[in-house]
Amino acid sequence: MNFSSNLIENAVREISKLPGIGSKTALRLVLHLLKQEEQSTLTLTEALRKLRQEIQYCRKCHFIADKALCSICESSQREQHTICVVENSQDVMAIENTAQYKGLYHVLGGVISPMEGVSPADLHIDTLLERCFAVDFQEIIFALSPTMEGDTTAFYISKKIQNPEIKITSIARGIPVGSEIEYTDEITLGRSILFRTAQN
Amino acid sequence: MNFSSNLIENAVREISKLPGIGSKTALRLVLHLLKQEEQSTLTLTEALRKLRQEIQYCRKCHFIADKALCSICESSQREQHTICVVENSQDVMAIENTAQYKGLYHVLGGVISPMEGVSPADLHIDTLLERCFAVDFQEIIFALSPTMEGDTTAFYISKKIQNPEIKITSIARGIPVGSEIEYTDEITLGRSILFRTAQN
Repeated sequence: MNFSSNLIENAVREISKLPGIGSKTALRLVLHLLKQEEQSTLTLTEALRKLRQEIQYCRKCHFIADKALCSICESSQREQHTICVVENSQDVMAIENTAQYKGLYHVLGGVISPMEGVSPADLHIDTLLERCFAVDFQEIIFALSPTMEGDTTAFYISKKIQNPEIKITSIARGIPVGSEIEYTDEITLGRSILFRTAQN
Repeated sequence: MNFSSNLIENAVREISKLPGIGSKTALRLVLHLLKQEEQSTLTLTEALRKLRQEIQYCRKCHFIADKALCSICESSQREQHTICVVENSQDVMAIENTAQYKGLYHVLGGVISPMEGVSPADLHIDTLLERCFAVDFQEIIFALSPTMEGDTTAFYISKKIQNPEIKITSIARGIPVGSEIEYTDEITLGRSILFRTAQN
């Protein structure tokens, strides 16, 4: 596409690097910004710059935070003896939005994946183990992706913990609410029969 | 949604002001930026800031330009006696991409719309008339939206030009290539029969 302007071309190129945004959408966004007040673009760019330069990660659980400790680790309202191990900060937000969990979190930053060159040393497993030794956790919940990598990571960590006192669980796998049994894949359906729960 | 971080909340709010981007997509983009190198965010924000602060509009045709005159007005390769009147810069880009037009342009900045409070004085009609008096145009092509407002604007301008020497045309309306006749609206189909073209 011929943009007639290097400024537009640069802006379109940078915006279309974002996931799910092609050059047509990027051009639409650029022309939208040009129609708005200059201040609205400056507010946007300032928010992004500040975000990227000032963001911190909680030094305890590695969740995104504005300061050294995230609001969850700081809170005394949270159940201090349960810890939920997740892959990334998005997972924490997703679980928080369910309002079904009141314990602590630990963000691994990924899962062990030899195929993609992610080894246990690349993840925040050491800090998790330190926390497990330091605090008297009663339960560790693995909320990792239901994939080979997720399972491997959960297995690896549970072996490392070596503490029979700590109950280790995984979030339930089964048929998602609202889906239809006939279209559910065999593994999920098989597991959901095997790990059936009591009708309450 | 609970974002745990004011920095994320601000960035998500600013991004979701863009057209077609909701807060879920905005969060996805924000987390993507956080995963990338800091430099890639700074390149993006710098491109947007420069775009908004340094963009200029061609003083002749009002098309987006990096300097006082756009590349089309500057070019001696363009047909100097034909001018195409469009609503906005996007329309110029769209027509340029067809590679079917080699003349000049004039960007009105909108169409006359009493409903939305857009009067002729709000548009670049005066500069178009000045160009028409100064240059010996042979043809003025109206490429405005096929709406009441577009037609009114074309009619208003052609009355103002008052020069029987200049041929005034409009881009063809009819059935878009690839569409089906049975699903075409009545007005378009009616016009396309009335203004049928010779088979070549």
